[in-house]
Amino acid sequence: MSLPSTLLEQAVQAFSQLPGIGKKTALRLVLHLLKQDPKQVEFLVESVKKMRTEIKFCRRCHNISDGDVCSICSNSSRKQECICVVESIRDVIAIESTSQYNGTYHVLGGVISPLDGVGPDQLQIDSLIDRVQKEYTEEIIFALNPTIQGDTTIYYLQKKLTASGEKSLRFTTIARGIAFGGELEYADEMTLARSIQNRLPIEKYISK
Amino acid sequence: MSLPSTLLEQAVQAFSQLPGIGKKTALRLVLHLLKQDPKQVEFLVESVKKMRTEIKFCRRCHNISDGDVCSICSNSSRKQECICVVESIRDVIAIESTSQYNGTYHVLGGVISPLDGVGPDQLQIDSLIDRVQKEYTEEIIFALNPTIQGDTTIYYLQKKLTASGEKSLRFTTIARGIAFGGELEYADEMTLARSIQNRLPIEKYISK
Repeated sequence: MSLPSTLLEQAVQAFSQLPGIGKKTALRLVLHLLKQDPKQVEFLVESVKKMRTEIKFCRRCHNISDGDVCSICSNSSRKQECICVVESIRDVIAIESTSQYNGTYHVLGGVISPLDGVGPDQLQIDSLIDRVQKEYTEEIIFALNPTIQGDTTIYYLQKKLTASGEKSLRFTTIARGIAFGGELEYADEMTLARSIQNRLPIEKYISK
Repeated sequence: MSLPSTLLEQAVQAFSQLPGIGKKTALRLVLHLLKQDPKQVEFLVESVKKMRTEIKFCRRCHNISDGDVCSICSNSSRKQECICVVESIRDVIAIESTSQYNGTYHVLGGVISPLDGVGPDQLQIDSLIDRVQKEYTEEIIFALNPTIQGDTTIYYLQKKLTASGEKSLRFTTIARGIAFGGELEYADEMTLARSIQNRLPIEKYISK
């Protein structure tokens, strides 16, 4: 696809670097921007620039934040003694959108994966241990993806946190099982087997 | 979906104004940019800004251009006496990518559509007539989309151009018919009927 202008070509090139956006989609977006009011384009450009240069990460939980400490960590009505350990900021947003969790988070920034060259040092593990030692913590909820890397990370973190001397700490993970709306016959064997092993008393199910 | 930062929210808001990009995709794009090198984000931002403010339109054919006259209009090896009338810049790019056309273009900027409030005055029709009167032109190829609006525009343009006094002008449209790889039974009746009416001598088909 040859384009009639190098300026256009550069903009298309820049857009097609984004995930899930190919050259054709990039061209559609750029031609759309070309028809827009310059003010609207300025808004896009400025908000991206500002976001990249001015955004901060909470120094306590490493979530995205406008200030030094994020709105969740600084909210006294949330259970500060409960920490939900997640892989990325997207997981925080996903859990927050359920409105079912009222504790705090700790964003690891990934999971331990030796094959990808990600060791414990690249993740926010030391700051989690530090946080648990300095602040009163009751429960650590592991909300990591159910992969080998996720499970390894849970195992590693649990050992480290137990070794750090906190006796009263309770470790939990989010429930695994058949999704609502999912069909039994299409569930993989692992999920089905685990969901039978970890079955719930019926009262717990109904109370939900 | 509530986001933990207003800067993030603004960037997501800006991206979700783009066509075909919803809030979830916008969030994915923005979080991707957040992980990127600031230089790469700067490249995206600058190229969009530059594209919107510095891009020009060819004053002869209204195609996108880096200068006053586009690379197609200023190319003396292309047939300047043949004008392909298209609706938008995207159509120029589509036809150019076939490498089968060696004439020039004229971008109307839309088609006549009274229901959408688009009359002949909003389109680059006067400049086309002006161009045909001033320059030697042999053929006008209408490559508009086969809609009622497209056909109306062709009819209007043909009348106007004929009235403008050019006697030797030849009018053509691109061929309509069953697409290559298309199946007869799934073609709509209109297309099939027209493709029978406008059937080709077999030699023409084979020589392609």
